[in-house]
Amino acid sequence: MSTYKRVHNFNAGPSILPEPVLLQAQAEMLDYQGTGMSVMEMSHRSKEFEAIIQTAEADLRELLGIPQNYKVMFLQGGASLQFAMLAMNLRPAGASADYIVTGAWSRTALKEAQKLGTTRVVFNGEGENFTRLPEPAELQFDPNAAYVHFCHNETIHGVEFKSEPVVPEGVPLVCDMSSDFLSQPVDVSKYGLIYAGAQKNAGPAGVTIVIIREDLLARVPEKMPVMLDYKVLAESGSLHNTPPCYAIYITGLVLKWLKNLGGLNAMYEINREKSEMVYRAIDESGGYYRGHARPEARSIMNIPFRMASEELEDLFVKEAKKADLIGLKGHRSVGGLRASLYNALPVASARALVEFMKDFQQRHG
Amino acid sequence: MSTYKRVHNFNAGPSILPEPVLLQAQAEMLDYQGTGMSVMEMSHRSKEFEAIIQTAEADLRELLGIPQNYKVMFLQGGASLQFAMLAMNLRPAGASADYIVTGAWSRTALKEAQKLGTTRVVFNGEGENFTRLPEPAELQFDPNAAYVHFCHNETIHGVEFKSEPVVPEGVPLVCDMSSDFLSQPVDVSKYGLIYAGAQKNAGPAGVTIVIIREDLLARVPEKMPVMLDYKVLAESGSLHNTPPCYAIYITGLVLKWLKNLGGLNAMYEINREKSEMVYRAIDESGGYYRGHARPEARSIMNIPFRMASEELEDLFVKEAKKADLIGLKGHRSVGGLRASLYNALPVASARALVEFMKDFQQRHG
Ligand SMILES: Cc1ncc(COP(=O)(O)O)c(C=O)c1O
Ligand SMILES: Cc1ncc(COP(=O)(O)O)c(C=O)c1O
Repeated sequence: MSTYKRVHNFNAGPSILPEPVLLQAQAEMLDYQGTGMSVMEMSHRSKEFEAIIQTAEADLRELLGIPQNYKVMFLQGGASLQFAMLAMNLRPAGASADYIVTGAWSRTALKEAQKLGTTRVVFNGEGENFTRLPEPAELQFDPNAAYVHFCHNETIHGVEFKSEPVVPEGVPLVCDMSSDFLSQPVDVSKYGLIYAGAQKNAGPAGVTIVIIREDLLARVPEKMPVMLDYKVLAESGSLHNTPPCYAIYITGLVLKWLKNLGGLNAMYEINREKSEMVYRAIDESGGYYRGHARPEARSIMNIPFRMASEELEDLFVKEAKKADLIGLKGHRSVGGLRASLYNALPVASARALVEFMKDFQQRHG
Repeated sequence: MSTYKRVHNFNAGPSILPEPVLLQAQAEMLDYQGTGMSVMEMSHRSKEFEAIIQTAEADLRELLGIPQNYKVMFLQGGASLQFAMLAMNLRPAGASADYIVTGAWSRTALKEAQKLGTTRVVFNGEGENFTRLPEPAELQFDPNAAYVHFCHNETIHGVEFKSEPVVPEGVPLVCDMSSDFLSQPVDVSKYGLIYAGAQKNAGPAGVTIVIIREDLLARVPEKMPVMLDYKVLAESGSLHNTPPCYAIYITGLVLKWLKNLGGLNAMYEINREKSEMVYRAIDESGGYYRGHARPEARSIMNIPFRMASEELEDLFVKEAKKADLIGLKGHRSVGGLRASLYNALPVASARALVEFMKDFQQRHG
């Protein structure tokens, strides 16, 4: 085996993947399990690829405890295409949908839905710079809403729901779970639809996982383009057309890695440990580092924080990079710094960040 | 280096990739050029990934001689999503589009466009079982058509255009080039829009290449979902949201391989050689093997053929597989046999097929 360099990868997405996954993909690149071809070279209708996609689905169902009456889809187009698709599929003509806006991503989801029909904003945290979650009492839902949409974890603003908003009986809860999907256990039965771009915890960019309660498929309107039609996509087992085979294969390897590690409870413990370490470093810095989100809303995945000046933040990013700590620049829309601590990020990398933060403060504070 | 087995891969798509491409992807899997991460783990906004996507675009422009006034996009959703997107973007409300139907894929493209608006079928080869191309005199276009759509190579029926249909002045020609894209030189300036799922000649499944003449972007209607909006996608350089990064990277490696090989003229010579070998084996079999397409319509990429009985065809597939000749079963919608001879298929594999065909005939004929 050749030697290779690996960095501490805090990218917000696409982001770090488990090293054993990459090693297996590397070993199987030219010859997948004696087939004499790469997974990239296989027919999506071959029995080998069918085993790959079916195993990925079965492992996902096991990890999340997905009930029987839910369908799983591996789609293309990213979470951004889902912003439009969910509105096109689940909001009948004339109906309105409720949106909870807690950060940049739920705001973008709202914007897409507004183009295509009626929406109502139930909560908007923008006036407070997206630093907090709504209180239950602030959420007055429309009992006739086609659905309620929220974003479980705001990747840019670092606010993460601790439990699902309680919606009126019969109104499906629709959730963008892109950036904390598979980071912790979830009670799928509380949701009508969950979607997540894979490129944070689940796999590489190019595949989006959608989990939908079967009865909602009856809402799909006539004359939908097939590639936007949840009913066609769900009933074909994501094989209506050529799926993103290699991205699904890598996702399957990540799911096996998660199972071997002990599943989502074990993963959650590790994720808590990593994020607590970094939040402690922020809280104990005496204001040198300032977290963006209010403590009770803090995300275990994405930690945006600021320093006293942009110059200092730039220097932080630059020196961190020299120390092989990569991807710490905040999102271009908000600036500052951000550490993303996804599943595959080793505890040792979180520790390296904390040590770097302390050292940097000592040298420049 | 470990040893690995490789088969003769005649899959219709996803399909064989050049071995040097897979070897390079394997070598770079854990550490792309000293970055300490896989391409799958990189931010799509990093300078490393920007170099990957920009180089892929530049190489594609060079190979195809794409004029300056065309935009290139790397999209998701497959050619199947383009069937709908092109109609949504390029056919104004109330306008009609002309379709040439020469096989299963152009028929499917038509079906999607019919759902969303008005179409006119200019030619339909279905009555003749999609064995031929239209004669120029058969093509009476609507001079006010929003566009004329055709499929350059019908992957299932194996008929391939030898030159572009001549359309009325000012009517853009729109082409599904999925299965012979990059197999031969093309005069892009004759087209308004070209699209191709990468998973035949260009790369792995999960990325679709769209080339559009800039002036057509003015047709995009208001209130399009962003992920279906050619204007947004073209102007963002395919980076409006997270693109299918790894599929684009592999496509970039394939484009470099094509350039090293001498570009599309050189590739075309090799493709002609391979397909002529197989057609000769069919023609010299005395009717034991029967090609589907009429000789003048024959594809250099996909060669569907039949034998006297389904039993014999099944035996052919089974014995071929034992001899490491993979992917020779015809498409499930038409049955029979099909050899796909994409760019990456070595001449030696075409030769192995021809020898197997002769040997099989001798043993069972
Ligand atoms: C929470 C959330 N939703 C949606 C998106 C958009 O995802 P995509 O780029 O796959 O469209 C992102 C991307 O980072 C995200 O973090
Ligand atoms: C000519 C042609 N067009 C369209 C398609 C559909 O492509 P996709 O599966 O990427 O949607 C195919 C698939 O084989 C094809 O060969």
